Amino acid sequence: MDYHLDPALQEPHYALQTHLGFKMVAWEKHFAAFELPLAPFLMNRYGIPHGGIYATMLDTAMGYAGCYTGSPEEVQLAMTLSLTTNFVGRPVGERLVIEARQIGGGRSTFFTEGTVKDETGVLVATGSGTFRYRARK
Amino acid sequence: MDYHLDPALQEPHYALQTHLGFKMVAWEKHFAAFELPLAPFLMNRYGIPHGGIYATMLDTAMGYAGCYTGSPEEVQLAMTLSLTTNFVGRPVGERLVIEARQIGGGRSTFFTEGTVKDETGVLVATGSGTFRYRARK
Amino acid sequence: MDYHLDPALQEPHYALQTHLGFKMVAWEKHFAAFELPLAPFLMNRYGIPHGGIYATMLDTAMGYAGCYTGSPEEVQLAMTLSLTTNFVGRPVGERLVIEARQIGGGRSTFFTEGTVKDETGVLVATGSGTFRYRARK
Amino acid sequence: MDYHLDPALQEPHYALQTHLGFKMVAWEKHFAAFELPLAPFLMNRYGIPHGGIYATMLDTAMGYAGCYTGSPEEVQLAMTLSLTTNFVGRPVGERLVIEARQIGGGRSTFFTEGTVKDETGVLVATGSGTFRYRARK
Repeated sequence: MDYHLDPALQEPHYALQTHLGFKMVAWEKHFAAFELPLAPFLMNRYGIPHGGIYATMLDTAMGYAGCYTGSPEEVQLAMTLSLTTNFVGRPVGERLVIEARQIGGGRSTFFTEGTVKDETGVLVATGSGTFRYRARK
Repeated sequence: MDYHLDPALQEPHYALQTHLGFKMVAWEKHFAAFELPLAPFLMNRYGIPHGGIYATMLDTAMGYAGCYTGSPEEVQLAMTLSLTTNFVGRPVGERLVIEARQIGGGRSTFFTEGTVKDETGVLVATGSGTFRYRARK
Repeated sequence: MDYHLDPALQEPHYALQTHLGFKMVAWEKHFAAFELPLAPFLMNRYGIPHGGIYATMLDTAMGYAGCYTGSPEEVQLAMTLSLTTNFVGRPVGERLVIEARQIGGGRSTFFTEGTVKDETGVLVATGSGTFRYRARK
Repeated sequence: MDYHLDPALQEPHYALQTHLGFKMVAWEKHFAAFELPLAPFLMNRYGIPHGGIYATMLDTAMGYAGCYTGSPEEVQLAMTLSLTTNFVGRPVGERLVIEARQIGGGRSTFFTEGTVKDETGVLVATGSGTFRYRARK
């Protein structure tokens, strides 16, 4: 997939983002995508990526998917209400590609779904989330 | 709550555990508890703990809650099938306390629920998870 | 458990309630309970209660748990945003007892959790739900 | 969408199916679809379809989506472990169309996702489910 990300919309990386190493690769109305290299520090007790990492990336991408405004001056914020993650497979590649879409919602809440794949296309996890908008800055 | 953790059951910290800084504080049949200091690198775009951290901690504690054997020689492993996290509040303290309980299951799968609070008792998140056992080592 | 239900708060049964046969047995601030006899028409392909019945009862009880006002003149309504149901066991008794509790929330949304047991105490299902308030009538 | 359903695979309606009035309209490998007329007895306290009906239909369609064998002699059964339903919208039509797809899994468990729309295409609910296979008859 060809991703599109307006450089003007890139935000400085926040603390956990730097700590885990993910970056946004696409942001459009109702859609966001991120990538995360599978660094050794993400691994669990079994030497594979910790499931919490998939949940973290789905939560991240889903929140952005519902908050696109198209303008760096108009920042829309949101809070996650509920997030469900399904752990479907195991990555064979070297990085994760996370996509999220807003599938509904209104002025106060929105609904999203997302996928975590590796760069070879293997489906690793899916998720759905419910969010609440916060007042715009 | 008074936690109990048999020192013989303590496992070496794995990679993500070291990277995020959590530790097990209790492990008994059908129960596990962890603590996580709220270090600056856990913070999200808004300067509060990233919701994925709560999901990560619930996933961690829930998996252990269903895998207690009482013996360091008998290691039971499990894979998360599905995890739902509800984001109820915001911590006011300095560390998270995560508790998880196994509430059902059989030979092949088990069910858990858990809470994330801060050390002052504020409820931050709740969750439920479904897991599948892997063959014992 | 001893349930309490103020007769003044009893509402006429609505259509699906009559069709499935459940009734409210308790309603207090942040809590509601219902009962459902396990009639033959609730059974699935395998001759056991359809899982959707558990989800239906959790959704019902959870919604009421967050909408108690104590006054029949002040009716608080809510919409479910997200509901997760975990299918833990199978009933051995003749009716279901469903309990739900509000565990958090604010002016616009609330969080709940609930259990489905049979009258002998067997745990059949658990659930969590996120709801949004509607304007009061 | 053009649905396909081999008449040889049609099963007699079970009890709850008759009571609620839904029917299978498609069944293929990893896919199943159902329809449900919006009869008055499905309505909730507000006069709209009860959310539990969406959960019931998702659970139903998802289970079948993972159990297709192509042969009426070879019946694959499954149990739902966990089901998450997101309540995205409200139907404007006269019947529900429920589609479910298997998105992963192995010999013992499988993962599904599904949608509930009305016949005009309005998205009403989405869901995901985790299932465990039972021994084949």
